[in-house]
Amino acid sequence: MNEIIARKKAGLKLTKAEIERVVRGVTTGEIPDYQITALLMAICFQGMDVEERSQLTRAMAESGQRLDFSGVKGIKVDKHSTGGVGDKTSLMLAPWLAAAGRKVPMISGRGLGFTGGTLDKLAAIPGYFFEHEQVKLSAHLNATGCFIIGQSADIAPADKKIYALRDVTATVDEISLITASILSKKLTEDLDVLVMDVKCGSGAFMQNLEDARALATSIANTANKAGVKTTCLITAMDFPLGRFTGNTIETWEAFEFCKPNGVYFETAVKLYVKKAKLSREQMLVASLVEITVELAVAMLDPTSRTNKTARKKATDKLMELWQNGSLRQRMETWVKAQQGDVAGLEKKGEQILKAFATNDSKTVHNYRAPAAGFFAHADSRAIGNLMVDLGAGRKKSTDTVVDQVSLEMLKYPGEAVKKGESILRIYKEDLNANDRKQVDNICKTALKLSKARPKIAKNILARI
Amino acid sequence: MNEIIARKKAGLKLTKAEIERVVRGVTTGEIPDYQITALLMAICFQGMDVEERSQLTRAMAESGQRLDFSGVKGIKVDKHSTGGVGDKTSLMLAPWLAAAGRKVPMISGRGLGFTGGTLDKLAAIPGYFFEHEQVKLSAHLNATGCFIIGQSADIAPADKKIYALRDVTATVDEISLITASILSKKLTEDLDVLVMDVKCGSGAFMQNLEDARALATSIANTANKAGVKTTCLITAMDFPLGRFTGNTIETWEAFEFCKPNGVYFETAVKLYVKKAKLSREQMLVASLVEITVELAVAMLDPTSRTNKTARKKATDKLMELWQNGSLRQRMETWVKAQQGDVAGLEKKGEQILKAFATNDSKTVHNYRAPAAGFFAHADSRAIGNLMVDLGAGRKKSTDTVVDQVSLEMLKYPGEAVKKGESILRIYKEDLNANDRKQVDNICKTALKLSKARPKIAKNILARI
Repeated sequence: MNEIIARKKAGLKLTKAEIERVVRGVTTGEIPDYQITALLMAICFQGMDVEERSQLTRAMAESGQRLDFSGVKGIKVDKHSTGGVGDKTSLMLAPWLAAAGRKVPMISGRGLGFTGGTLDKLAAIPGYFFEHEQVKLSAHLNATGCFIIGQSADIAPADKKIYALRDVTATVDEISLITASILSKKLTEDLDVLVMDVKCGSGAFMQNLEDARALATSIANTANKAGVKTTCLITAMDFPLGRFTGNTIETWEAFEFCKPNGVYFETAVKLYVKKAKLSREQMLVASLVEITVELAVAMLDPTSRTNKTARKKATDKLMELWQNGSLRQRMETWVKAQQGDVAGLEKKGEQILKAFATNDSKTVHNYRAPAAGFFAHADSRAIGNLMVDLGAGRKKSTDTVVDQVSLEMLKYPGEAVKKGESILRIYKEDLNANDRKQVDNICKTALKLSKARPKIAKNILARI
Repeated sequence: MNEIIARKKAGLKLTKAEIERVVRGVTTGEIPDYQITALLMAICFQGMDVEERSQLTRAMAESGQRLDFSGVKGIKVDKHSTGGVGDKTSLMLAPWLAAAGRKVPMISGRGLGFTGGTLDKLAAIPGYFFEHEQVKLSAHLNATGCFIIGQSADIAPADKKIYALRDVTATVDEISLITASILSKKLTEDLDVLVMDVKCGSGAFMQNLEDARALATSIANTANKAGVKTTCLITAMDFPLGRFTGNTIETWEAFEFCKPNGVYFETAVKLYVKKAKLSREQMLVASLVEITVELAVAMLDPTSRTNKTARKKATDKLMELWQNGSLRQRMETWVKAQQGDVAGLEKKGEQILKAFATNDSKTVHNYRAPAAGFFAHADSRAIGNLMVDLGAGRKKSTDTVVDQVSLEMLKYPGEAVKKGESILRIYKEDLNANDRKQVDNICKTALKLSKARPKIAKNILARI
């Protein structure tokens, strides 16, 4: 091990055998932590090339339980995001791709820090349950085409160990290690196709396009080298995604999205079919609609990245499945298959919506514009952290979350705002004066109004 | 700690408080090893400036027991070497400087790998004993002016811990860490003056002048900043130092050196007083004589580094103490004070010399020149490792050493050698055929003969 550390420190490329030895030693505990962290720090300075990255990814994926869907017919696809605020796309994508004939064996995580987690959103569905037995997972895929479960304890244990050490040794920001950590878990899913949603902006780990592009390129190259057909979309994360943030209300929004007659579908029709101007209400959900559709298209046909005809064809098919009710139906089938109560969740969501609609003084607080202007920028990281403070997320992994805490965006990016108008509102049971004060304090610096109409970034920044 | 690692990783300078926190946490065990090694690796890439080095050195010195010679009058001096082959200068320097009125509280180490250790040489003296009680050490200094002891378990424990981690994480070669490790132990000795013998060449850790100069400069700057008047001599280590290598025989040579009527003194007279041509026998010991005298001069008067008059004055005084028997006498007083039997050691040495003189076929093996030429170069690292293989040194710290294994150089650097003439010989009890074969094999590649008379490096390469 000392020699392996010395070789990386000297800037040399590690061999496949060396990387496998390291990952094996990490997994069994044979290599002491102090040697692992020295190697991680050397990697921070010397990096790893795409071959080393894919070998590390593969070795970490093979360090624990791997799913085996050889008994499942069809193309297995998944989507993974680097984490954002208000991002509930997985909940629509899994049933949508299943409705399109794909198999979606989705393993999701819990939220930590300012980013939300799909698993926390699913936990808001009464009864929603998941298991890890291979035979049942295969049956799920065969029957409903998709599932969304959490990580079993034995998924990529080498990554868990390495991540825990990176977290306390200032070695979290190195791109090879980020790439291998993200992909190693996905590679246990026995996938054919992967789409990575690399978020970029104030509410993402990657705050600028250059960093996002570097990570996306690394992920695409590494995953493709490891045998999974992978596309990365770099998507804007400068404002919370969609109209709502919060576990129950985001799941409600996702289910609402799936309906063939709602504002989300109508927005998509204007964006992709009619090319018409959006209404105010549609503007509020436009980014969620566009990003979800584009991710679905990339999942359905990886060639759509460069081939516009393929993109059009995939979009048409997905719009059809949306319009004819297949998406909504598949969503219901999937949630029921995992013992979830769709109506129960919708009821929980509607209670929140009712409080919002009546501006219930006990539970709702509006943040009002201190002056007139245009809604130019949101520090979504600060908004995400505000939600964590209010109980919707976790500061540390052992925290519990309160699924009803909700945020509604009332202005869309770039919209004109009058002095005293609400820009967003918060719902929380037993909202107290401190909560209100905190919301105002955070929003005062996190939400920026400009005098001139601002230029808002595109939703899809790059396809890699 | 995570933040301290992040700051060093980013190339920032650590504050005194941060360095002290790290060393305290290392000593108490509060900081886990995996964070220490991540920091060490970050230091390998980002380095530490002279202020950080001296703060680290000071903090490591203060992490355990420190000697206190406030009750001892006089200037406290010591010499430390980076390690070489055949280097017994400490054994002459301690009594010599004591004879010159200085106090020499010398703490030495055991040999490891190809370099010998002063403590192993002293262990060859029957009865030689050392203790660590502060009150007795002060008494030693007051009575005899010097002592040479080993490290107590509690000297610079932070350095011990850090060194052990560096050793297994490929972080041994960074100059700030080397500097702090060497100096932290010396700084526990309550010194006024320190001379570092930075060895340079085939038998040293620093193999070229550039590296040696960088280390010497770092040590001098760091130690002077930490309050100890420090000179570094860079000395040649391309051939074993002196005529003999091996624990008993080197101690014998050191005692012989101290005599006012031996070849060593006569060589010094020709070098420093008469400026006359040396005999063959004198050429064999010239490097040992010159390096020992120059180290003694630097210890006696640090201003001699740049001031030639001071250097001449110090040299004269030391020559006088040698000639009038004070050096030899002080050596005997010191060894007796530590319960050592000088005559007993000399008897052991003379048995070896007798075997050499008679070329005793049972115990002595000559390595003979395979062709005629000039003795141009010795790979002293290989020679040192050969001695370790024969039992004179240690491969790992738990090995025991055989003190009678000896090597005698029969040709001096640059001397003409006829085909079949001995260049060196080995003494070992029960020398077997394998030993002889190994000596021949190693020497064949380690000892280089040239056709033309070679240029031999100076003994003193730089004073810093």
